[in-house]
Amino acid sequence: MKLAVVGAGVVGQSVAELAGEYGHTVTAVADSSSAVADADGIDVDALLDRKREEGRVGSEAPDAALDAEYDALVEASPTTLGDAQPGFGHVRAALERDRHVVLANKGPVAERYDDVRELEAESAGSVRFEATVGGAIPVLSTVEDFGPGNITAARGVLNGTANFVLSRMAAEGLGYEHVLAEAQDMGVAEADPAFDVEGTDAALKCVILANVLAQGERTYRLEDAEVEGITDVPGSALELAGADGRTVRLVGEVSGDTVRVGPRLVPDGSSLAVAGTTNIVQLETERAGRLNLSGRGAGGPETATAVLSDVGRLPER
Amino acid sequence: MKLAVVGAGVVGQSVAELAGEYGHTVTAVADSSSAVADADGIDVDALLDRKREEGRVGSEAPDAALDAEYDALVEASPTTLGDAQPGFGHVRAALERDRHVVLANKGPVAERYDDVRELEAESAGSVRFEATVGGAIPVLSTVEDFGPGNITAARGVLNGTANFVLSRMAAEGLGYEHVLAEAQDMGVAEADPAFDVEGTDAALKCVILANVLAQGERTYRLEDAEVEGITDVPGSALELAGADGRTVRLVGEVSGDTVRVGPRLVPDGSSLAVAGTTNIVQLETERAGRLNLSGRGAGGPETATAVLSDVGRLPER
Repeated sequence: MKLAVVGAGVVGQSVAELAGEYGHTVTAVADSSSAVADADGIDVDALLDRKREEGRVGSEAPDAALDAEYDALVEASPTTLGDAQPGFGHVRAALERDRHVVLANKGPVAERYDDVRELEAESAGSVRFEATVGGAIPVLSTVEDFGPGNITAARGVLNGTANFVLSRMAAEGLGYEHVLAEAQDMGVAEADPAFDVEGTDAALKCVILANVLAQGERTYRLEDAEVEGITDVPGSALELAGADGRTVRLVGEVSGDTVRVGPRLVPDGSSLAVAGTTNIVQLETERAGRLNLSGRGAGGPETATAVLSDVGRLPER
Repeated sequence: MKLAVVGAGVVGQSVAELAGEYGHTVTAVADSSSAVADADGIDVDALLDRKREEGRVGSEAPDAALDAEYDALVEASPTTLGDAQPGFGHVRAALERDRHVVLANKGPVAERYDDVRELEAESAGSVRFEATVGGAIPVLSTVEDFGPGNITAARGVLNGTANFVLSRMAAEGLGYEHVLAEAQDMGVAEADPAFDVEGTDAALKCVILANVLAQGERTYRLEDAEVEGITDVPGSALELAGADGRTVRLVGEVSGDTVRVGPRLVPDGSSLAVAGTTNIVQLETERAGRLNLSGRGAGGPETATAVLSDVGRLPER
């Protein structure tokens, strides 16, 4: 397939870099200020060099990517809340051209899920978004194969930054501020870590999962989730938990009508007590008990594999 | 889709029972001595009663199922080795009619993988076999979505009976014979448990996985696997391991050209130290590190969900 990639951060660049290995051709890439397009396939190496050295991917206007020749648009621009723009607009542009959309950007399917599905229904294109929940872990594909109606509940540890901070606090007996600074130095936490440590990122993923499980019965948005982050978890809480053979993890849960994220006590060594930046999702199924899926929840190449798996599952137009 | 189910043991009966929930119609069921067929859909409840009370599913000859009206044949007869008959013959019959095949029977894809793929290539029907590896755990779908070429190795604990026996030996400090007898009483081990405790069942699953990962480069059969079971693991080995924070699990590994099953020391609390009859598969990926998938590896409803997920992934004929 021919792919137009909107967003040239870590994920967008990884998708452009790996697309060829999956048999696809990148015909356009856009960042916030520019674009490059070539119906026969762009020079990806040149693009990556140019982005690194000049801070932009090309010399055309960004919208040139939306107008380019492509079969599927990969939306990998930064997640935005509320109206989910400009990402939502890119989804609309692709579907109105009867093209497919593969999302890594959580905004459109967390904040405007019903709008996205409505546009999809009127289009010959399909929308997929595996990369928005759990990075490389095939959560949504598994839900899709099982049948969303056969999943009675889901829970998970879905934010690697928060998980890393809690793991380190417990392992080293250090305080939150100290470990957060350490995580920022290591590149595991952003300069502005709020999205991760306040639970917003995990909540968006749970909202997306809730939307998929609801199968159109109702639509969730971030504001429907009860969210508590890890900023108030004291080192002493972890010590106390440790003495009792437990630890603390930022756990997201989707069950019934509830979407909730918050710190939870989990037994040491249990499935949810994942270490470092590993993510895990537990699906409770109607007939087959509990299914655990764990792996790397974030990272350029990791998220790109989810995007490219999705491209592989798109129907031929 | 219309389904013909060949094999009316635990798995076949579960598939017949659950097919309606997934939107499919069962138009034929066969056991080893009889069949029942109805192009508009058989009475599944009546069939289950008849099987339970009379030991047979219908009053027609078994081959009536192969001749019935159906879109996909579900092959759920007992796994046989070598020529994999009569299961292989059922696969051939369906493909020669340009119908799909969904296998729960491991024989054809463990012992005659190239023959199956050849028949599939000449047919309008497709062959899927998720249920043959890891029961309800979506191993093969995940490999398919990732791209088999992107999986560099796989390992797993794939036999619940062996796992249960080893878990109990370690937990209770009891000997193998004692725990095996217990497992047989509980229905976790068969009256003739050889297939499970000698590692054959786990090896067949690993051979199937190796065939999928090899993508046609070479074909593996059971005889290509190095197989050691748990019959010689003494209680003392588990005690010694326990004192060192480890335990023993029957681990299957597929990497490079090697397919191997045998008892391995694994750290207590690690991913491979699954408890009871839980199965786990670890996939090492090219770009996304290690992916862990765990859940119920066996059981009627569990395996039936894998079969029905496969039916959902079949292309329209």
